[in-house]
Amino acid sequence: MPHDLPPDGELTVFTLGGFGEIVAGADLASLIAAAVDSRLIDGDILAITSKIVSKAEGRQRAATDREQAITDETVRVVATRAHPGGVTRIVQNRQGLIMAAAGVDTSNTPDGVVLLLPVDPDASARALCTALRARTGLRLGVVITDTAGRPWRDGQTDIAIGAAGLAVLDDLRGTADASGRRLDVTAAAVADEIAGAADLVKGKTSGNPVAVVRGLAHLVGDMTLAGASALQRPSETDMFRLGTNEAHDEGYAEGYAAGRAAALTEDAFD
Amino acid sequence: MPHDLPPDGELTVFTLGGFGEIVAGADLASLIAAAVDSRLIDGDILAITSKIVSKAEGRQRAATDREQAITDETVRVVATRAHPGGVTRIVQNRQGLIMAAAGVDTSNTPDGVVLLLPVDPDASARALCTALRARTGLRLGVVITDTAGRPWRDGQTDIAIGAAGLAVLDDLRGTADASGRRLDVTAAAVADEIAGAADLVKGKTSGNPVAVVRGLAHLVGDMTLAGASALQRPSETDMFRLGTNEAHDEGYAEGYAAGRAAALTEDAFD
Repeated sequence: MPHDLPPDGELTVFTLGGFGEIVAGADLASLIAAAVDSRLIDGDILAITSKIVSKAEGRQRAATDREQAITDETVRVVATRAHPGGVTRIVQNRQGLIMAAAGVDTSNTPDGVVLLLPVDPDASARALCTALRARTGLRLGVVITDTAGRPWRDGQTDIAIGAAGLAVLDDLRGTADASGRRLDVTAAAVADEIAGAADLVKGKTSGNPVAVVRGLAHLVGDMTLAGASALQRPSETDMFRLGTNEAHDEGYAEGYAAGRAAALTEDAFD
Repeated sequence: MPHDLPPDGELTVFTLGGFGEIVAGADLASLIAAAVDSRLIDGDILAITSKIVSKAEGRQRAATDREQAITDETVRVVATRAHPGGVTRIVQNRQGLIMAAAGVDTSNTPDGVVLLLPVDPDASARALCTALRARTGLRLGVVITDTAGRPWRDGQTDIAIGAAGLAVLDDLRGTADASGRRLDVTAAAVADEIAGAADLVKGKTSGNPVAVVRGLAHLVGDMTLAGASALQRPSETDMFRLGTNEAHDEGYAEGYAAGRAAALTEDAFD
């Protein structure tokens, strides 16, 4: 397994600068290949902000349709919270990701439009990775990143919403630690850590939508490796599949009906 | 604000190698300073695996006391799940962190003991950062890292459980995006992204407990900056403060009592 090799001890992340405004139909692989020039080496991973992928794929709607766009992208409502400006909806979207506003994005977008996430970010990553490998002759990986909030911790981190050509999970389960003891439950979500590392350099406002992550060649492998959707925990096994208030409300309604029925049954036997 | 400056466009992360076995009472700052030799430069951030801090602080208990140690470290049970080997407890611990097994760790530990997290990881980070700054004369940051699972996504990532001398949150709220539009809800949890980037290099089994993160000098500031506890979302405002099943059960019990009472009241008026 390529990802069982140790890291080579140094990680470097650098950006490629801006690409100008990306329009629908843009050939992102060509633009990236041109920007990266001859700076790539074998084993590099490209971390690409989903926003430019969405723009190239024409995934935009009128800003006035924002609420409807969120509804249309929603598969399952996970939690909602009212606030003075409206209602924040945390939902599972068509891509399987749990995100505020279904990942519909209004920052760094052209005037008057909102951006939707790519329809299938793993497919987008595979297409980009295949094209970039063909162009450069190098063994490369591609991670498509987006910014997401998370339970329990303030602030957002970038995560991998699409990936190709690399191990997204560095599965150490069953291997031994430095003392020879089994590491039972350790599987590092390396694609998410790569997305976060790239965000540290790309930033949010800098017009740097692509970063090269170098030093993780041991994670780069063939194009059949699982994409970032493999990092999505199925909601059936997710201990936090619903918001606390939503789960409480569901339980209350079920309990109320059951309690009422039980009392009436008792009464019938009085 | 130091963290409003743009990144300098390149991030480098490298490890310092092993430190041998760390014993209780070890002077970690001296060991790290010796290992890092003259390789540090102004603005570097040291990402230090919590395990060696725990060892130096003598935070260990007999492995046979593991379950009791988890109970003792627990402030609030968030979710539990039975499995063939026992019960996994996701809890909020004394440090305020929500973690499986309260962060009590059995891998990479000496035989026969389990490690508890440092009592106050931010205080540990401040002590280490102060000592390392005094020794080197450099403006440095320190992040103490640990591995944590998260809702919704498979695999673990390293997060910052302690921090000193750097902005843990790169708060862009109120600033403008590249189009001049306000970035309303963006505050990057940079300390967590730094912990994750360091994990990519340190790994879990490599005996590399310390990484130097270079290129984020804009985040490094004075020693009064908030620690990593500032990244903990207060449970009162956390939409996922309880597991789905636990919240459902609480709601069911309340609803059952209310439904029963309502039925009996109705009955009284029959």
